Amino acid sequence: MGVMSNPFVTSSQLAEARALLDRLIAQHPPGHALQREFQTDPGIYQLDLERIWRRGWLFAGHTCQVRRPGDFFVFDVDTDSIIVIRGDDGRVHALHNTCRHRGMKVCQAESGHVTRIVCPYHQWSYARNGELMACGGMDRDGDLDRRDFGLHRVHVREVGGLVFVCLADDPIPFDGAGAALGALLRPQGLERAKVAATRSYEVRANWKLVWENNRECWHCNVNHPQYVKANYDNAPIDDPALKREIEAQARATSARLEAGLAIDYQEAGLVRFPSPDSWWSINRTPLVPGWVSESMDGRPVAPVMGDYPSRDVGTLRMRTMPNFWNHSSCDHGVSTRLAPAGPQKTLVQVQWLVSEDAVEGRDYQLDALLPFWQLTSEQDWDLCEKNQVGVNSSAFTPGPYSTKHEYNVIRYTEWYLHEIAKPSRVCRPAG
Amino acid sequence: MGVMSNPFVTSSQLAEARALLDRLIAQHPPGHALQREFQTDPGIYQLDLERIWRRGWLFAGHTCQVRRPGDFFVFDVDTDSIIVIRGDDGRVHALHNTCRHRGMKVCQAESGHVTRIVCPYHQWSYARNGELMACGGMDRDGDLDRRDFGLHRVHVREVGGLVFVCLADDPIPFDGAGAALGALLRPQGLERAKVAATRSYEVRANWKLVWENNRECWHCNVNHPQYVKANYDNAPIDDPALKREIEAQARATSARLEAGLAIDYQEAGLVRFPSPDSWWSINRTPLVPGWVSESMDGRPVAPVMGDYPSRDVGTLRMRTMPNFWNHSSCDHGVSTRLAPAGPQKTLVQVQWLVSEDAVEGRDYQLDALLPFWQLTSEQDWDLCEKNQVGVNSSAFTPGPYSTKHEYNVIRYTEWYLHEIAKPSRVCRPAG
Amino acid sequence: MGVMSNPFVTSSQLAEARALLDRLIAQHPPGHALQREFQTDPGIYQLDLERIWRRGWLFAGHTCQVRRPGDFFVFDVDTDSIIVIRGDDGRVHALHNTCRHRGMKVCQAESGHVTRIVCPYHQWSYARNGELMACGGMDRDGDLDRRDFGLHRVHVREVGGLVFVCLADDPIPFDGAGAALGALLRPQGLERAKVAATRSYEVRANWKLVWENNRECWHCNVNHPQYVKANYDNAPIDDPALKREIEAQARATSARLEAGLAIDYQEAGLVRFPSPDSWWSINRTPLVPGWVSESMDGRPVAPVMGDYPSRDVGTLRMRTMPNFWNHSSCDHGVSTRLAPAGPQKTLVQVQWLVSEDAVEGRDYQLDALLPFWQLTSEQDWDLCEKNQVGVNSSAFTPGPYSTKHEYNVIRYTEWYLHEIAKPSRVCRPAG
Repeated sequence: MGVMSNPFVTSSQLAEARALLDRLIAQHPPGHALQREFQTDPGIYQLDLERIWRRGWLFAGHTCQVRRPGDFFVFDVDTDSIIVIRGDDGRVHALHNTCRHRGMKVCQAESGHVTRIVCPYHQWSYARNGELMACGGMDRDGDLDRRDFGLHRVHVREVGGLVFVCLADDPIPFDGAGAALGALLRPQGLERAKVAATRSYEVRANWKLVWENNRECWHCNVNHPQYVKANYDNAPIDDPALKREIEAQARATSARLEAGLAIDYQEAGLVRFPSPDSWWSINRTPLVPGWVSESMDGRPVAPVMGDYPSRDVGTLRMRTMPNFWNHSSCDHGVSTRLAPAGPQKTLVQVQWLVSEDAVEGRDYQLDALLPFWQLTSEQDWDLCEKNQVGVNSSAFTPGPYSTKHEYNVIRYTEWYLHEIAKPSRVCRPAG
Repeated sequence: MGVMSNPFVTSSQLAEARALLDRLIAQHPPGHALQREFQTDPGIYQLDLERIWRRGWLFAGHTCQVRRPGDFFVFDVDTDSIIVIRGDDGRVHALHNTCRHRGMKVCQAESGHVTRIVCPYHQWSYARNGELMACGGMDRDGDLDRRDFGLHRVHVREVGGLVFVCLADDPIPFDGAGAALGALLRPQGLERAKVAATRSYEVRANWKLVWENNRECWHCNVNHPQYVKANYDNAPIDDPALKREIEAQARATSARLEAGLAIDYQEAGLVRFPSPDSWWSINRTPLVPGWVSESMDGRPVAPVMGDYPSRDVGTLRMRTMPNFWNHSSCDHGVSTRLAPAGPQKTLVQVQWLVSEDAVEGRDYQLDALLPFWQLTSEQDWDLCEKNQVGVNSSAFTPGPYSTKHEYNVIRYTEWYLHEIAKPSRVCRPAG
Repeated sequence: MGVMSNPFVTSSQLAEARALLDRLIAQHPPGHALQREFQTDPGIYQLDLERIWRRGWLFAGHTCQVRRPGDFFVFDVDTDSIIVIRGDDGRVHALHNTCRHRGMKVCQAESGHVTRIVCPYHQWSYARNGELMACGGMDRDGDLDRRDFGLHRVHVREVGGLVFVCLADDPIPFDGAGAALGALLRPQGLERAKVAATRSYEVRANWKLVWENNRECWHCNVNHPQYVKANYDNAPIDDPALKREIEAQARATSARLEAGLAIDYQEAGLVRFPSPDSWWSINRTPLVPGWVSESMDGRPVAPVMGDYPSRDVGTLRMRTMPNFWNHSSCDHGVSTRLAPAGPQKTLVQVQWLVSEDAVEGRDYQLDALLPFWQLTSEQDWDLCEKNQVGVNSSAFTPGPYSTKHEYNVIRYTEWYLHEIAKPSRVCRPAG
């Protein structure tokens, strides 16, 4: 089987989209926003799926969501649904959520615990690692060899409490990300965390507009009154006074930290473009003086997590293309996960994590834990939707990015154009 | 005018769909589920309309719904709307529900009684047989010859109280179906029935997944707790002990019946594939001992219908491709009618019929009459929708059918592939 | 940049639509309704946008809605959004509502007052004439020349209190319309009016079906019981007795009027097809005896407007293709504005205007002012939606128009076919 044909775009439409893409890439003026078709065209959206979403590593969730064998959760990407489940071998498995008999969606729940994965239609039963264990009614007359009919497998990696999956046959390298993320994530202790709250959103904007929004904080001063109280990243890159302040604050925070917790307020990773590690970055950055947590008033909202020696650790931040970012304070982490659901629709899940021992009501209150990132997130989705409406205008012409405020948007755009330009490889379900 | 061009698919998209269809048919492994595109592709959906829905006989409703001249009901198939009306000649007519002037939908009501069919826009008036009787404002200046402007006609046939229509110019043979259905339907007396209740559903699944669900009862044990109490068809075809039980029960029931009511628990019809009669089947089957009606407890829910000599008649069952099945007990019948409304949307209407003399509240109660098939139907729609979601996955691969549980699904799939492979004939409105 | 590519139709689909259009035009039988594809096909819809909606003059609103510098309202046409705003120079400007930075929709409100147009995303600030005044964060490092980054401009004309915009680079002539509309509109005093009420509708019908409905009153007798009490236009063109009555009533009304208010009960304008002035018409027509206003009972519903010498002035009526009509009585005017929002969706805004000095509650009551046109309008939208449903039938065949009732529909259809046949010109945002 070659490139998966998409049910909603014909092959000639896809061919036309490839030609359009080549033309758009050739015409792209460096340092400018992407042209309209990138955010609107159904064919380009299919190429995004093929070349970005079905090629790269996608954040699916946290290992603490599948703590015991049989714990599972489901992650949907466009029309694909992926079951992430801990197997009896203690490892995390990722499986396509479509029965090998007649294609029933086997797991209806968004999360839960199962002994076996049993299809509700005809009770084909799969082990927690996806192997077909029973399909009574087929067995006895030799209709099939069960070994050929396990749930289609999806590649999966765990690092520092995070679970990543890859829909490609032949995944892109994960080792660099694994090593770097693992090192910096270690003291946060996310594998010993628990999900305190989840909020899900349907954002009526192309997923790339969500990233364009995320990759700069120029919009923060006016749009994120809560966020800017805690952070420095609304400031331009070239302000010498501010740079001195940030560096002093970084030194002050670092001084109180052990090795391995050094503050590096400039993102790495995406800077290294176009290396194989260009799809991720992670860094630790100081909070403003007096703030120890990304909360409404900067005060703690939960017990210290992981192995932190004190609360004064700034924030650990990471982002992995195309669908994840996380900000973690001393006492909680917030993970944002994107999934495309159409040219102008993105599903977003935001999860708040605290130490697994923390007890709601005693050790933390949701109305203190949530507002900082819930407000900031919802402010952003609103901006993204208004941005999409304006980009849909036939008069839209992509403007220039600010080199001092939008340098990370420029890097992101370069990353995207580099990735989307690569021809699709042959891909098929990995099972 | 050639093949009706569809407004939503361009002619090159349709040509591409034909090539895709040829490829899918060539690649189809016998005994396996249909490939994903059959359930998702807009172009394949158009070919389904052309080659199945606008070629074959469609169940529209019951003769008892149009008892008197002027009684009518409306049946929608994709974007077509068909008026079924009894004419002054006592015959049932089927007419396209689009005014010959400017295309107004002439009948807005789903059913009713009219002296003439009067377009609400400019009062063009049509007789009950579709002839244009008046179009005041056009007449006097010779703008048109009224004989040329009757409502476009649709072919129609009545048999045993059922009304079938055919949208093609040149319908496929009906005689075989007419003779066989007529013979077995006679004692049920559906032409002397009345509709006791109607339930309508919008099922978010391709119409073929609804049939795939209908054509086997392997899924019944777990999903239809009510249905399996009354029936045998959840059992595999090759269980010798069960076969003996069914045959004994068939003999016992038959012994109490007159000639013409013989029990034939195996479906005929679709078995005869690919004869011209492959699109229908009808048979009578025993209920389990102690059950005389498909009701929640097996007891009667209405007076005996038609000419039945006793209540112990098993159930009469029939199905006609592509859109109808009916189960009739001694005291009531249940008709299910499908209509496609998009690649992933099927409109379903379920109707319960009882003897025309029966009086609600006295002779039957809706809360006793409806649950058996209402529950079973709604359980099935839910399964179909979950099946569609799983089939939409890019990882979906069609699995093998069970030869002992899904033999009728295999026949159905073969029927479909045989029909869809036939090139579209020239077709135009019959008026 | 050439013809704006639409995000939702590929260029090969557009090419196919052009070929389809040529075929449909060649096959069109004069005096008949348009074929189905004109009302359903997504490609034809795109050609409608290119050749009609982005070429001609569109009514946007009234000058009284932007009385003071900084007053604005927004007008959406398909995916384009246009800001109509009065500048500091006292002139009305029309600007594309998409920021020149990253395409944010800059004005979210439907109307309001601003000192500057400030993008909510990164605070790029535009003067009331669209010039970029500030984009702090870009300025200092010479990222751009502000003169190149004003909001894209849209051509705009004012006449008699009405604001028209044109999305084309090179607008079609406006002078003929400006002179004629200006002369007849003068006594109505719309530039000294105010909007008393606005009603917005989403009509599920192609915009051309809305016009087909508007351009004849054959449907009025049955469908518009209120309207026909006041007006003559439900009558056929060839009724000699009625013609004498109308002419007598026209003479009687004219006798009481000053020069310039002559009654001309037959529309001009569209009659002059295919001159450059074929897209508009305006005329004054008598009301039936005893009626001085298009109100439920014919009595006044507001103070006399403009320079009218008395209440007995009949009604002033105008229509401009493709999106405007207005009926104005002595005391109020009603403007209807269309905007396409898809092949089967039209957004309609109806506005009622009264003298700017009139005070609600004292000089006029909404429940007296609104019903006549609100009822008539809503009756029409309902007809249009039912018409669309019937036209969607695969059996729809366009019927003949009545030459005595639908002569203006015939003219409208000829205008449309003449315009849509003209190849698209190169077009780009005017800024």
